[in-house]
Order: sequence, then C-alpha cells, then structure tokens
Amino acid sequence: MLSFGESHGRCVGAVVDGCPAGLMLSQKDIQRELNRRRPGQSELTTMRGEVDEVEILSGVFEGYTTGAPICMIVWNKDIDSSKYECVKYEPRPGHADYTAGVRYGGFNDHRGGGRFSGRITVSYVMGGAIAKKILGEILKIEILAHTIEIGGIKAGSTNLEEIKQAENNPVRCADQEATKKMIKRIKQVQGEKDSLGGAIECLALNVPAGLGDPVFNTLEGDLSKALYAIPAVKSVEFGSGVDAAKMTGSQHNDPFAIREGKVITPSNYAGGILGGISNGMPITCRVTIKPTASIGKPQQTVNLRNMKETTIEIEGRHDPCIVPRAVPVVEAMVALVIVDHAISANLIPRVLEKKI
Amino acid sequence: MLSFGESHGRCVGAVVDGCPAGLMLSQKDIQRELNRRRPGQSELTTMRGEVDEVEILSGVFEGYTTGAPICMIVWNKDIDSSKYECVKYEPRPGHADYTAGVRYGGFNDHRGGGRFSGRITVSYVMGGAIAKKILGEILKIEILAHTIEIGGIKAGSTNLEEIKQAENNPVRCADQEATKKMIKRIKQVQGEKDSLGGAIECLALNVPAGLGDPVFNTLEGDLSKALYAIPAVKSVEFGSGVDAAKMTGSQHNDPFAIREGKVITPSNYAGGILGGISNGMPITCRVTIKPTASIGKPQQTVNLRNMKETTIEIEGRHDPCIVPRAVPVVEAMVALVIVDHAISANLIPRVLEKKI
Amino acid sequence: MLSFGESHGRCVGAVVDGCPAGLMLSQKDIQRELNRRRPGQSELTTMRGEVDEVEILSGVFEGYTTGAPICMIVWNKDIDSSKYECVKYEPRPGHADYTAGVRYGGFNDHRGGGRFSGRITVSYVMGGAIAKKILGEILKIEILAHTIEIGGIKAGSTNLEEIKQAENNPVRCADQEATKKMIKRIKQVQGEKDSLGGAIECLALNVPAGLGDPVFNTLEGDLSKALYAIPAVKSVEFGSGVDAAKMTGSQHNDPFAIREGKVITPSNYAGGILGGISNGMPITCRVTIKPTASIGKPQQTVNLRNMKETTIEIEGRHDPCIVPRAVPVVEAMVALVIVDHAISANLIPRVLEKKI
Amino acid sequence: MLSFGESHGRCVGAVVDGCPAGLMLSQKDIQRELNRRRPGQSELTTMRGEVDEVEILSGVFEGYTTGAPICMIVWNKDIDSSKYECVKYEPRPGHADYTAGVRYGGFNDHRGGGRFSGRITVSYVMGGAIAKKILGEILKIEILAHTIEIGGIKAGSTNLEEIKQAENNPVRCADQEATKKMIKRIKQVQGEKDSLGGAIECLALNVPAGLGDPVFNTLEGDLSKALYAIPAVKSVEFGSGVDAAKMTGSQHNDPFAIREGKVITPSNYAGGILGGISNGMPITCRVTIKPTASIGKPQQTVNLRNMKETTIEIEGRHDPCIVPRAVPVVEAMVALVIVDHAISANLIPRVLEKKI
Repeated sequence: MLSFGESHGRCVGAVVDGCPAGLMLSQKDIQRELNRRRPGQSELTTMRGEVDEVEILSGVFEGYTTGAPICMIVWNKDIDSSKYECVKYEPRPGHADYTAGVRYGGFNDHRGGGRFSGRITVSYVMGGAIAKKILGEILKIEILAHTIEIGGIKAGSTNLEEIKQAENNPVRCADQEATKKMIKRIKQVQGEKDSLGGAIECLALNVPAGLGDPVFNTLEGDLSKALYAIPAVKSVEFGSGVDAAKMTGSQHNDPFAIREGKVITPSNYAGGILGGISNGMPITCRVTIKPTASIGKPQQTVNLRNMKETTIEIEGRHDPCIVPRAVPVVEAMVALVIVDHAISANLIPRVLEKKI
Repeated sequence: MLSFGESHGRCVGAVVDGCPAGLMLSQKDIQRELNRRRPGQSELTTMRGEVDEVEILSGVFEGYTTGAPICMIVWNKDIDSSKYECVKYEPRPGHADYTAGVRYGGFNDHRGGGRFSGRITVSYVMGGAIAKKILGEILKIEILAHTIEIGGIKAGSTNLEEIKQAENNPVRCADQEATKKMIKRIKQVQGEKDSLGGAIECLALNVPAGLGDPVFNTLEGDLSKALYAIPAVKSVEFGSGVDAAKMTGSQHNDPFAIREGKVITPSNYAGGILGGISNGMPITCRVTIKPTASIGKPQQTVNLRNMKETTIEIEGRHDPCIVPRAVPVVEAMVALVIVDHAISANLIPRVLEKKI
Repeated sequence: MLSFGESHGRCVGAVVDGCPAGLMLSQKDIQRELNRRRPGQSELTTMRGEVDEVEILSGVFEGYTTGAPICMIVWNKDIDSSKYECVKYEPRPGHADYTAGVRYGGFNDHRGGGRFSGRITVSYVMGGAIAKKILGEILKIEILAHTIEIGGIKAGSTNLEEIKQAENNPVRCADQEATKKMIKRIKQVQGEKDSLGGAIECLALNVPAGLGDPVFNTLEGDLSKALYAIPAVKSVEFGSGVDAAKMTGSQHNDPFAIREGKVITPSNYAGGILGGISNGMPITCRVTIKPTASIGKPQQTVNLRNMKETTIEIEGRHDPCIVPRAVPVVEAMVALVIVDHAISANLIPRVLEKKI
Repeated sequence: MLSFGESHGRCVGAVVDGCPAGLMLSQKDIQRELNRRRPGQSELTTMRGEVDEVEILSGVFEGYTTGAPICMIVWNKDIDSSKYECVKYEPRPGHADYTAGVRYGGFNDHRGGGRFSGRITVSYVMGGAIAKKILGEILKIEILAHTIEIGGIKAGSTNLEEIKQAENNPVRCADQEATKKMIKRIKQVQGEKDSLGGAIECLALNVPAGLGDPVFNTLEGDLSKALYAIPAVKSVEFGSGVDAAKMTGSQHNDPFAIREGKVITPSNYAGGILGGISNGMPITCRVTIKPTASIGKPQQTVNLRNMKETTIEIEGRHDPCIVPRAVPVVEAMVALVIVDHAISANLIPRVLEKKI
C-alpha cells in the first residue's frame, strides 16, 4: 500500500497494489470503515466537519477488483489553514513541525501538519478496509481493536462479546465502568485546554498457525513497523509485553494442550506468536498513543528565524484524546500486515473465483 | 544484511551488502563485539563453550572494505545435539519448535532450536559491528545499551557515565544496587531450574535531526522491526513508551529550547523522534526480553505424533537470564537501522576515501 | 514510481515517491512531456481525441515539491468502449487479452486493453517528466530518444544536432531521407489495415562515471527491466548490442584515451556501461517495438467460451505505427532509472535548497 | 539470491533465501551444474584449473531443505594474481577495471577482475541449480540454453532433440555444421591472441500461462534484468526480438488456435509472453555475449596515476570465447526468475511435503 496527500491539500489517497482479482468491492466497503474514523462522531472529537467520502479511481470493474492497483481518494473539503502560518517557524512541541522542516528543508506542506497530520490515516483506513474484507471473506480472520486505557484509567478484564460492543460507546472501551471515567476525564482536560493519551489493544482472531518469515520478517516485526506508521504511537507490545520483564519462565511459557484435536495454549502470554510465527492462538498486541500534541495551553517553543525562545498557544480544532478514533486505524494496519503474510503463505489465491 | 546458519549446523553467518568502500576493517573489529555476546562470560550464562571466532570470507581487501558484499562466518564447534531429539515431536513451551514445525512442515533443523536459537544473533552482532564502526567513525554516533530490569528488579535513574560502565558488571546494569539484587535473583531462579525476563534500554547519541522516511519507513518503525528480529523481545517502546497512556499533552510535549545556538528539548519524552524523524536528541528505546523459554522444571506439552498431552523436562545448557548477553545484540540492531537511514540521507559517502 | 488506472477507466495516474524536496514543479513541466506522447499529433496516429491534461493532487506546495509522494492524474475523456465487448472471450492476437484473462481470472478491465493499453504509458511519461527535470537541473544529464527504424527502413548515421531536431518530424527520425520512406511506408500499411514495428535509440548524455550497483542491480539490468515495462518492446540492447556476436575482442574493446584531462573512449561499443557501471561516455541503448497488435485485417483467434477457433476483425482507433509516440516513453523510463541510481550515488540532495 | 566472493579472494558464494522446505537437495545437485560451467572442459577454455567443489553451509538438514537460507560456497584454489598488479592503474579496455575503480574509489579487489570476473557466475549457477530442480520437480518446467552464434557464424534452425544434444559438443551448438565452423574460428582467433563474441538462446518449456506481474514486474523485465547480471551480455531479446522492427502486425501477431483442447499459438513471435505475462508457449529469449575482453593483443589504455595514454598486453589464462561456458549461466538466471514468479503465483508450496 502507498499513501499520498496532505491534511490541507487537495485530497488524501491510497493505492493498494497486489490485491487479488475477483473480490467484490464497492465504495460502501471502504466508507463503512472511514465512517468509524471520521471526526464529529461525538462531542469528544474535533469539530472539523469532513464527510470523508471515498472515490475509487481504478482497479475495480463491474463491482469486482481486477488485480490492478486500486486508487482511492478522499477529497479535503473543510480546510481552514489560517491557524497554521506560525508553525512553519515556531514548531509546535510534540509535533513533527520541526523535524519535517529539517528533513524537507522547509518545503513540507505545514498546513494542518501536512503529511504528519492524523488525517493521513484516512489512507490507512481505506487500504485496511480492503485487507479486512479479504481476511474476513477468505480466511474468516477477524480484526478487533478497542480502547484499554485513557489518561491512566485502565479497562478491566473484558470478554470477546464486550469487546465487540465497544464500538458503540464514544471511547470504544469494552468496560462500562472505565468508559464513564474516561469520558469524564476527557471532558475535564478539554476544559483545561489539555489532552490525554491512552492505549489500544488489537486482537486478530482465527489467524492460522504458520504465518511469519523469520528471522527478519517476523510477524511482530512487520506488525510493529506498520503500527509505528500511526502518528502518536509510543509502544508496541505483544502478549505479555512489558510485563514479561517481571516474570519467570515457568510463569510465562504457555503450556501446549489438545482441545478438540487441535494444539492450543490455554494461556497466551505469547500473544499468538512464537519465534516470529503465528501459533494459531489469537494475536494480541497493544499500542500506546501519546496525548494529542495540539493543546491550547501556552507552551514554550523556539522561533527558527531568529533562533530565540518564545511561547505559543495553538488554536484550531483538535481532539482532546485521539485514542477512540485511532481504534479503526490500528485495525487497518494489523489487517494490512496479516493479509500480506497470508498472501506469501499461499493462503489467498491470486484470483478469488474464475469469471470465464 | 542477510543472516544464515543454524544453532547446531556447521556455522552461523552474515552477509552485509551495501557497505561503503574504504572502511578499514579487520577481524578484530568484529571479534570485539562477538566477545561481548559470547557465552561463558560469567557464571550466570550457558556453559556452551563457543569461542565464536569470526572469519571474513569476502568484501575486504588489503584491510579495507571493497564495497562488495562482506560475508562473515563463525563455525559452530561445541555442539551437543543429543538433548534435542524429543523437541521435534514434543515442542518446548515458549519456544518456536511448534510454529517452526508448522511453518516448515517439520523439515526445520530442530537441533538447539536451529534458526530460532539465540545463537542466530551471532550474525546480527557481526553485521552490527560494521554498522557501529561506520556510525562511530563517520558520524560520531554512539550506540549504548544497558540492562534496566531483570525479574521485576528495576534499575534506578543513572547517568551516561554509569551507563558506559555497565559493560563491566555481569548483568550489564548501570545501577550498582540493582545489579546486586539482579544477580542474587538470577542465581535463585537458576537453582529452581527456572528463568527470568528483563528489559534493556538503548541510547543512540549524536544522531543528527532529519533521519526517517515517513509515513511507512519511520525511524521507530524500522527500529522496532529490527528489534523484533531478536528472539524473546515482547515490547518495543520509544521515549515515554507505555507511560504516555497516563500523561497529558502538557506533560508529554517536550518544549523546544535553544542551547548553544542549537534547537533542543530539555525533556525527551519523544525519545528523540517526532513524526518518525529524528529530532537531534538522543534516541531512546526500550525492549522487554521474556524469560528464557528453556527451563529445567517439568512443563506440559503435547506429542504431535499421537496428539496427546505429555510432560517434558528440558535438559541442555541454558542461560537462566539472557538479558545481559542480549545487550550487544540490541546495540547491533539499532546500529544497523540507523546506518541504513544515514545512508539514505546521503550522510555516508559511497567511498570513505579515494585510494587512487 | 507507481502506476494506476486503465485505458477506459476513470483515469490514468502515477505516484512518484522519493522525489527530493525543493524542486520547482508545475503542471506545465509534466504537460510538456505528455503533449509529446499525446495522440493526434499527426495523421499517422490514432484519432482518439484525448487532451491528456495533468492534475497534480499531492506533493507539491507553493510551486515546489515537498518531498512527499506526488500523485498525478490524467482523466480519461474520449472513451468509446463499444468495440471491446468481444475481446473478453475472443482474445486479439498479439494482445494481452488472453494472458490478462488467465492471470486475473477474467476480472481484468478488458476495455481498450485496460491496464495493458499503450495508454498506461501516460503514467510513465508523468513520472519521467519529473525525473528528466531533476537530471537536467541538478546533473545536466540529457535524455534523448529518436526513431532509428520503422518497418525495416533504417535511419543512417546522424549527429547529435540532427537527433535533437528529430522531435520536429512526424516519425521522430533524425535522418530526413529515411523519414520520408518511413512515412510513406506507414501510410501504405495503414491503407492495408496493417501495422509496422520499428526501433528507437536512446542516449543519456553527461551521465557521470560510477553509477550502477553490480552484480544484480547493474545499470543495464535496471534500464532493461524498466524498458520492458513499455508494452510492445521485444529487445533491449546496449552499445554494440546484437552486433557484438560478430565481433572480435580487438574490435569491440573500446580503448581508453585522455581528452582534456579526462578518461574517455573514442569508440563506444560499451554503450557507456562497463561491468554494469557507467563509464562517463554517453549511455546508448536501443529498443525494438513490435508492430501495433491492433490491425483491421481478419485474424484467427479462439472463442474461450466454446473453445473453438474463429476469426476477428478489430475495429477501433489505432496507430498504424506506435514507434514515434513511444519515443518520449522510452526517454521517461531511462530517466526514471538514472535518477534512481543518481540518488543512491548521493548525487542528488534530499533537499534541493533550504527554504528556512 | 545473494552473491558474494571475488575471483581471487577466498571463495565465491551464494545465499538462496525463500527456498521451500522439503526439497531433497544434495551437493551433487549443485555440483552437476557447476561442472557444466567449470573451466577446462575442452581445449577451447581457460587453463585455470579449478575443480569448483561446492560446500553447503546451511539450510539443508538430513538431505532436505529446511526453508532457512541456503549458503553455498566454492573455495578458490588455483589463484595466480601476479598478472594483475598493473590493471589497478592501467585499466584493461572492455573490462570493469576503470568503472569499478571509480565506483569503489580504488578499494575494489582488482585481482582477476574481483567481483567483475566471470568467475562470479559460479554463484549464479549454484543458485540456479536449486531453481532448476524446483521447477523440474514441481512444475515439470525445463530450462534449455544453447549457443546460436559465435563470431558471426550462426546456427541453422534446429529441433528440440538437437538442442538437447548440444550439451555434448564443445561449443554447445545444436547445429553440427555450424559447430565445426565455430570451433575452427575460435582456434583461429586464439592463435591471433584475440577473442570472439556470440549469442545464446534459452528456452523455458512447459511454463504455465499467467506468470508475470505487470506493469513493472513483467516476465521480460525480470528476465532481462537477471540476464544483464551476467558479465558481457549486450542484448536481451524475446521471441522475434530485433526482427520485430521489420515486420508488419499481420506477420507478427501469433494467431490463437486450439490443440487438444488447449489454447496455443502455432507461431511464437511473442516468445511465450504477451503483456508481460506468460501465454503457455515456450518462453524464448536470446542474449548476445560480447567477445572476451581479455586479449593478448596490444591495446591502448591510460595510466590513471600520471593520466597518460599507454599500451598494455594482457597476460593470464583466458577463454578465447566464453559463450559455451555461459550457456549454463543463462539457464541459471532464467530458472531463478521463473521460480520467483511461480512462487508469487502460488504454484510452489511453502513446504513440498509434510514431514510430521
């Protein structure tokens, strides 16, 4: 997948190459996922009023994918770049303004963060929508992400049914109690012109054992690389994650067992991956999302023209906590990686059904 | 870099392609790093008696790299495969025996874990030795890893001087107090035929701002992918890492400041990377290493031939805690990624000096 | 570079990733090259009336490239797909109808040849326009292609001045005498509802010595791979090409000489490349273009539904000889490869000039 | 596949990554192909006395491939570097001495041509031997190359049976009459301290329709790139090749027909490929090999230290015509590309048979 476009440019787009031919695909399949990421779903999100309507420009013919590259575009409509003139020379703390300026010599489109805006994840979600569809229809693989922490408030243990319901609450958390606290906390920092970080867990269910190409293209490696393409991710863990540092081998090793004639592990500290290869158990990974960098509070920065320190207050329309809207983005990236590994494992035919 | 070889095969090797011509390189440069990873450095490590002597087979001529692929080999000498016959059909919990068997249809070399043994990291360290030398000599970049946690015992805050000294203690921890506790704890679990996990922090000092190729080839993404090639890694964090979930934007955003005419950030929750691009501050990342999977305690597993559950006790010579020996491996992977990004940023000439 | 779109779909597009920031770039730079490839330039070409107007959707801001992916699109306007219903089941000889049907299971967009139409080279020319601009402005490299054979009529020896003038004649041949014969011959076969093949030579002038990454990424290898992406190419030669089979070493070896303090070769059978690396002399390559496969004459084919042989007569608007319009396409592909090698040789800065 | 090693270094080696597990593979499978390329097979070849015995260092266990990288090595034994001191500063015409010196700043191993020696093709043949075995055993694909021209003497039309017999004559030509003339001509130029070029045709039989990934990874594109990795190749043609420039569409288009219920083309000007995708007919390609650059005759060159013109006479043991020994090398490269495309077409399982 390739991504193009800028936050305040003409559009955000994605080109998916290597999609098998014969997949029934319509605008609706993409739009459904885009709507999950779209701003304005609740009072907790930015007020930027984008409908984010996708157009498919190539690679689909008579309702089916052709096997040719699929180009998808969302035109930017509600653009207000007036607030961004300063950031070119007074980089916002926590943002890519400064590093993008260095990397691209100041030629980067700084408006709305340009390529470094969360808006760029529109392209990930478009590509991920196709990946999820392939995984679901061909391999019955389901990708499910949900919020497990916001501002230090952690969700308690939840079951699969609750996780599926998480989609219906404004923070996408499966734990009702924690949800209420999270919402309250978000509104509080919103009032303080501040923001909150959090964490998302993603499950990939029904992934067959045997995916992954060690030593360098492990499943964890490819997943973590893809997840770090999401702006604001600060950690990627699998299974036990950071807690593995506290454990002994006898606690951490998942014993093998037989259930209904299949090899399983009753516990899953491995997160569904051993030696970089899926073991048939659910793949479980977690990402930490840092607090939204754009906050209204005064912050110290520098003026790059006169090289003096100064203070800025960022205006504009920002999410006080981006975690809920990042949930479908995490799913998209996980789906894209798993579909790639499934293709290289010969699990997905190059043509889904013959037409002639 | 490409890695080949098996734990109990003839050798472990690496081929480094794309190394600039004109780098003075000898066996010693590689050997120094291999010695840091070699078993038998203290009573805390495996008794496998490998000297791990490197041979350079190609790509070096009259003491300098030629620009051609550099093949390096360490021959396996102290091999005892007698203990491994069972693991083909009775996979060891926490190991790749089962997943490798599925992935490669049972044809994988299972002796000593084969390709999935920690021994494979010999190849990483060989490649990393070249990368570290290039970074040090051309760009004055220093890569420094050290143990920050073992079995739940965390190192306290330490300074750069202490971190540099960590190399000299058996667990490679910069905090003297924690070191003592860690050693004691390791010996304890060793007696219990069990093992311990831990965590390593890696610093990359003096990395110039501007490295990284968003959106998909971010510096974090490439680093985390490389780090997950190390067996046993369960998490990769940058800067604030998992703690970002607890923070507000005003806490997490590193303010910009001017020091000696340069843009810096007094705090470094970003871990030296903003928007996937280095910002000139030290790159700080952390990995969690799970407890060594090979433990002597009886464990439940399955017999893949009769598909019945059974119990195994793993014999063999294993590290009760692999964390200290993983320190140079982490450095190697970080160095390999940074040198790649430095090359694509035109910071490393294709020829280090002209000979004619 | 990535290409998307279909002959009779909504558009043809290209995404160029990795373009340095700070290149002044406007629609006009692209349009100039597109106009050279556009149909309807003379009576010798197809009557499909496309204006082929480019839109730049991303990666350019305030007149300069930003370093982000550049997406360019040409909307298809003059589409008449009525003539193509049959080709799905009765593949046209010499076309990709049959192989595309097998490869994509019949889901490929067959209208106008879909992805296999010469129209797809619009995307190559768009990408090549940027590459040519970079090469010209940064390295003073000039890429010049011209027709050297059509239907067995070969151009005689011509000089650089004549080659530059070739652009102004309808077959883009530098030899005036041959031009007249070529035009006459094309009109003749046009009357016979037949078509002609030919050959194009491409020169890359001022390429510095030292480009190419043997053994697998030789300059010839990358150029030939790129040139074979042009539909209808049947051979790629460098320097002496097929004539090398007749020669002795003493004839073929280009002697080295000194001119104005520089190493040159007075002859250039090497085609500017030795051992896969440029030697500083002009790179000279030749491609053979097969006769346009779409001809009005009755041809034998098969019906894939009843698996019986049958006869077709292809209607539609086709060039009797595609060679002249392929000239800018050949230049585009050569430019794209050379710019890639120049980038990996550190000859092109990541930022062309600093803005701040 | 990756290649390493130098002509007069310690060894020449190859690493093949991505080979399916479960292929029965022994040293003999590789050695058989190496013997075909080995010097000293007749009086027409170099006198360098290498036995070229392969050692398999990794990736094979108990007689079967494991799915891990396969490293193969041939140690260099009969090295005489005494003749090469001069070439560092007085580059041999037609050789890579000059361009390698520029590219690698003079640090390249110049002895015997180093990385640019024909000896490097030992690594291609080792990799190709595995590819040929997979293609033959899994897909019944046969790769057959033979000499069709030497020094302007062209082989007449021959049938498949004759082509298979070509292996048994010293120039590997299927035409007995031409063979005699070729041998005579080679001996003649040998006496004159000169050398000859020639051409090789390669057939790939039984390749299924549908291989190739247009637009950029066409079958021709990947084959030609691989073939240009062979030193001395000056042209790559498919099917009609350069003759297409003389033809009309009605001559060139291969009509489709039905034979035994299958779609075929009675003629094969396409060379088995349409639109970059195999059509099920034999793939036919041709390469031109330039005359061996190393000749005993005096030649003009330059001295790079004093930048003056000078004359050299090359000593050493060189083939007067490398074409016959290049035949197995061409087969190797064709096999490697086709096996790659077959893998991406899901035609080759990741595991050839299950062991457990």
